[in-house]
Amino acid sequence: MTVTAAGTPKPSSPENGSPDDETLDTTVDNSDVPHAGNPEGAPSVPTQESADVRQLVDNLRRTLDGRWHDLREYAREKMDDPELLPDPSLTLEQTRERTFDHLKRLADLDFAAAGFRPEHGGTGDVGAAITGIEMLGYADLSLMVKAGVQWGLFGGAIENLGTQRHHDRYVKDLINLDLLGSFAMTEIGHGSNVQALETVATYDPQTEEFVVHSTTPDASKEYIGGAGQTATIAAVFAQLVTGGPDEEPTGRGVHCFVVPIRDESGADLPGITTHDDGYKGGLKGVDNGGITFDEVRIPRENLLNKYADVDADGTYTSPIENENRRFFTMLGTLIRGRTSVAATAGAAGRKALAIATRYGLSRKQFEAPDADHEIAIMDYLAHQRRLLPLIATSYALAFAQNEVTNELHEVQGGPEQNPDTASDGDDSRAGRQRELEALVAGLKAMTTWHASHTINTCREACGGAGYLAANQLSIMRGDIDVFTTFEGDNTVLTQLLAKELLSAYAQDVRGLSTVGWARFIADMARDVFLEKSAARQVVQTLMDSSDEDTEKSELSNRGTQIRLLRNREDHLVRTCAQRLRRATEPDADAFEVFNSAQDHLLKVGQAHVERVVLESFVEAIDNCDSRAASELLGKVCDLFVYSLLEQDLDWFLMHRHVSVERAKAIRRGVNDLCADLRPHARTLVDAFGVPEGLLTVQMTPENRPDPTTV
Amino acid sequence: MTVTAAGTPKPSSPENGSPDDETLDTTVDNSDVPHAGNPEGAPSVPTQESADVRQLVDNLRRTLDGRWHDLREYAREKMDDPELLPDPSLTLEQTRERTFDHLKRLADLDFAAAGFRPEHGGTGDVGAAITGIEMLGYADLSLMVKAGVQWGLFGGAIENLGTQRHHDRYVKDLINLDLLGSFAMTEIGHGSNVQALETVATYDPQTEEFVVHSTTPDASKEYIGGAGQTATIAAVFAQLVTGGPDEEPTGRGVHCFVVPIRDESGADLPGITTHDDGYKGGLKGVDNGGITFDEVRIPRENLLNKYADVDADGTYTSPIENENRRFFTMLGTLIRGRTSVAATAGAAGRKALAIATRYGLSRKQFEAPDADHEIAIMDYLAHQRRLLPLIATSYALAFAQNEVTNELHEVQGGPEQNPDTASDGDDSRAGRQRELEALVAGLKAMTTWHASHTINTCREACGGAGYLAANQLSIMRGDIDVFTTFEGDNTVLTQLLAKELLSAYAQDVRGLSTVGWARFIADMARDVFLEKSAARQVVQTLMDSSDEDTEKSELSNRGTQIRLLRNREDHLVRTCAQRLRRATEPDADAFEVFNSAQDHLLKVGQAHVERVVLESFVEAIDNCDSRAASELLGKVCDLFVYSLLEQDLDWFLMHRHVSVERAKAIRRGVNDLCADLRPHARTLVDAFGVPEGLLTVQMTPENRPDPTTV
Repeated sequence: MTVTAAGTPKPSSPENGSPDDETLDTTVDNSDVPHAGNPEGAPSVPTQESADVRQLVDNLRRTLDGRWHDLREYAREKMDDPELLPDPSLTLEQTRERTFDHLKRLADLDFAAAGFRPEHGGTGDVGAAITGIEMLGYADLSLMVKAGVQWGLFGGAIENLGTQRHHDRYVKDLINLDLLGSFAMTEIGHGSNVQALETVATYDPQTEEFVVHSTTPDASKEYIGGAGQTATIAAVFAQLVTGGPDEEPTGRGVHCFVVPIRDESGADLPGITTHDDGYKGGLKGVDNGGITFDEVRIPRENLLNKYADVDADGTYTSPIENENRRFFTMLGTLIRGRTSVAATAGAAGRKALAIATRYGLSRKQFEAPDADHEIAIMDYLAHQRRLLPLIATSYALAFAQNEVTNELHEVQGGPEQNPDTASDGDDSRAGRQRELEALVAGLKAMTTWHASHTINTCREACGGAGYLAANQLSIMRGDIDVFTTFEGDNTVLTQLLAKELLSAYAQDVRGLSTVGWARFIADMARDVFLEKSAARQVVQTLMDSSDEDTEKSELSNRGTQIRLLRNREDHLVRTCAQRLRRATEPDADAFEVFNSAQDHLLKVGQAHVERVVLESFVEAIDNCDSRAASELLGKVCDLFVYSLLEQDLDWFLMHRHVSVERAKAIRRGVNDLCADLRPHARTLVDAFGVPEGLLTVQMTPENRPDPTTV
Repeated sequence: MTVTAAGTPKPSSPENGSPDDETLDTTVDNSDVPHAGNPEGAPSVPTQESADVRQLVDNLRRTLDGRWHDLREYAREKMDDPELLPDPSLTLEQTRERTFDHLKRLADLDFAAAGFRPEHGGTGDVGAAITGIEMLGYADLSLMVKAGVQWGLFGGAIENLGTQRHHDRYVKDLINLDLLGSFAMTEIGHGSNVQALETVATYDPQTEEFVVHSTTPDASKEYIGGAGQTATIAAVFAQLVTGGPDEEPTGRGVHCFVVPIRDESGADLPGITTHDDGYKGGLKGVDNGGITFDEVRIPRENLLNKYADVDADGTYTSPIENENRRFFTMLGTLIRGRTSVAATAGAAGRKALAIATRYGLSRKQFEAPDADHEIAIMDYLAHQRRLLPLIATSYALAFAQNEVTNELHEVQGGPEQNPDTASDGDDSRAGRQRELEALVAGLKAMTTWHASHTINTCREACGGAGYLAANQLSIMRGDIDVFTTFEGDNTVLTQLLAKELLSAYAQDVRGLSTVGWARFIADMARDVFLEKSAARQVVQTLMDSSDEDTEKSELSNRGTQIRLLRNREDHLVRTCAQRLRRATEPDADAFEVFNSAQDHLLKVGQAHVERVVLESFVEAIDNCDSRAASELLGKVCDLFVYSLLEQDLDWFLMHRHVSVERAKAIRRGVNDLCADLRPHARTLVDAFGVPEGLLTVQMTPENRPDPTTV
């Protein structure tokens, strides 16, 4: 039996009903089953098989696809091939080789060049580059990570931190895979705290070289994609030490250097020691590894010098005076990697839901009372409650992701920034970039946690079938796991966002120590935050249609929903700022004050992202010009909101943002919305547009991999 | 650097403090760090390195170990060997062989014989058999599953469903692995709904044989451990069809048959088609597979005939008249497997916590304000909140598990039951067995979900290091996943428990259809449940010391805590019964009534298990004769309760079982208890007694597996 919707039609048996009961059509779900619920609020949304359903799926897909719809359609066509799926029967070596072969297929598709400006050798379409990477989440997460490391991280460092000499030398080669790079930031001792990296690059004016050195065992670069085996070059983050003609050598903070690490035969270059991380919890196609530097000399030109340079005599110059601001400006240009990770996690979650929903519609267990057929597990409330809120959240996150991708495209895709002005002043692009960084941090955390949880839930919802590697979910479960860690640990990222919110986007706060930051907060006017977060048009209109007292407006009113999330965020920000102000009292232990409020701080970040995600959803519905699609999306948005509220119901009750009666209505509302959306379950996951060739999951014995051939 | 507590001592570096700050002792944690908190309530609990700490760890361990402490110590000694750990670099074939070699080591230890009565060829110590399996959770979950299938499931079927002819023929051989068995219950089409299995065994009086047949493709046995490659024989569950001299062949319900499936060369026997499930999400050492039967003939003697028999002429006899009761009696004897799965999941969760806690104590990130050293991540509130409540829950579950193992030992280990009387009447052992079944169902769900969540959290809490296979967590994460599915899907099990609670342990309810069951509930007096759950002595004493109005008693009062969980359970049971009664109204759609209350029903089961687990914890503290240990356990129990309450705070608020003020106190309480327990983190996980050889997780390059040798 296949897990694809239709399944192998089950033969009828005496205990079962007619064959019709057992066979599901591949394009619509069995919405005519007795207990599937009937969405009163959406009478015009078709659930029967018909051209209408296909039209609805198509309209939903366009809305979900957003600005890069055409690219997505092109990618779907090119990726509709089971050969792209991970093959668990291959060895580590074979898997890595196969992943690299697939990477070459992508390079041949001119897929990679979009991430680089035309004047640097690319085609200059940042949004397309991210969307292309995202689509790989439907195929193979190892392939996505390989592509992300090569073109997004290594390529992104060259593109965004380098200058013409680097673009001329590296961009073409790295796009077409003649040059394989890695992105060597994390060390054994420091991952989250990048400013404390222990690799040092000391400038030697005698030879006009930097000497790159791992100063302690903890300074070894670690978990670096590509460093295990394939990369011949690395973008290495290290503490720059340089003086000048009349200056002692001084630490200048973390900068990025291009360091060759392997020769063409794959041997470590002199002074370089790499190792292979071997087996991991997933991502078998990615050769993660470590790099240790023993006084490795590289020419002065290998400093990626867009934001700081070292003259021949060792003089250090930078258009950005403040060291902290310089550091965060450099780091900020790299958010493309983090954005891609969030986008891909979203895609992986959607694919898992497509698989589990198809399974849930075809799998039956236990007879209905007074009936002679078993019930599709998707018709059980508990199963609906497992999957449908995750589908709703996936929609919400996809819309938010589209906005973020779009904004990044605008910010990074415009005319090249001049670091002299762009980062020092408060020009609008620098401001937008910074707001975007904070949002991407929070969205990456929310999406990757959602994806990990979703894939785990989908595996469980498919029972034993879900555990077979042939059915993909268990492989995806292993692959997605580390998405919550790399490109920023989710807890650290959420905290980063929260600090940014509390400091109301002011300058020079990010690099402050905890105590310095707490003092800064203390000086803030408490209403700065609210002023900063003026609502977008559609949101304002909706809010205006609801009562300021949320209990006086219907919960189904979108304005009320937005107010509830806005009020929560506002409440959390204000009270958190109040708590943190205590750090400035004379006898306060600043760490203690900060630490005892850490759970509060994390909640600030979470509440903000959830609110922004809802508003993206609202905007997407507003922009959808199909009536049936927008009606259905309205229901999906309701379920997203109701389940968000349900998850945090204790907070809303404790802080009297909802009454006990409303709380009970929220719980009932989730159940009712599940019943309403159940007939559309198949439509909703079909709209994700996961290529069919990547959903071909088999359960028949003849299609299982034969382990004896391994 | 190693993740074991001491780690490779980090060299000091200019940015870091003295070497002392960097090195952790292996036996105590760095409780003298500034922000570790000081448990006011437990002044006599030692946190400094001393004989006292070692004594405390020892006393905690004895309390945790329970009745089979000596066996556990023996197992620790025998298992203290990294060679037992999974090796991800081996192929599927190699892994299976290695796992089988380890299984033989266990058989040689006379480990397996404990599960069988002396008169059958064993040594007759049911509790020891389960505890031995549980301890394998510290080493390799594949090994546990292989052992569990062979001795627990296949062996358990022979032992508990068979009679002397089966014991004589199979027990010795299966103990010493001369006979490799599998347990063929699940089919492609039916896992949870065992009564609807489609494999049929038709008795042929002409030849005195059963004809075993897979009647549909869905009838294929699937996911069967050992069926993929190694088992030569299977305990097969099938619908028995037999008549008699004057009787038409009739379906008699599901029975268990011994069916040879492979010859000595490993080839399928005539009529048998096996297949190999190949790669899965984990458990690489277990050869799961499928079996299809094409009119396979087996002798009449191969019916495991303890609870039903077929005479030579086809006459069917059973000491248990009611078919449902017979079915559930047979199934009930097999709870040993489910019990072992719960026990092992508990062990796996504890091991993950030992690894993550050691890592959290040695890993530092970000500087403290006004200080020149970085802070151990275990000192951050967010990290404490991640790990310490899981440690507390692991303690609670371990105590509940010990009680269950003990009770099973008593129920199954006594003089052999006579099915004629034991199951039909309401004799105390049958009653105890049935209560135990319900509790095991709920505990298995709670423990395996806890373990899966815990291992996932621990992986994340160890960042990139956690993702390396060499550090075990990611392998454990893949292995544990299916524990929530096999031996009963957790959702189905929780529901089973809830139904049992609602029907107040009455007879003949389990086999009823949903509607029949709802009608039964309707006839119940609503206070039956409360009468049945009379409190044990220590619980009653504690409750007596607290006010009946929970808001009037301190939340830290154990009696108050118990009352809160008892009141919740009682409230849920009563209101759920009321809702389900609607199913009996004339125009009611019984499925609709049931389905719309399914989330309520699941909550009944969950609330019951949590209450029972708390009471086991209370009993264990009461039985602990070390003052320091019981004081510390009291704090751990507090954290268990507070975090339980926090997780379900919305329910307690909505149903006015706690006030808003108390809800806030609960949140603060979790934070305070985390601070109190932080200095004891290392002590608490050391007390688990995971053999050091199984915690040897390496992060140094030289200890990584070399993937090039694969």
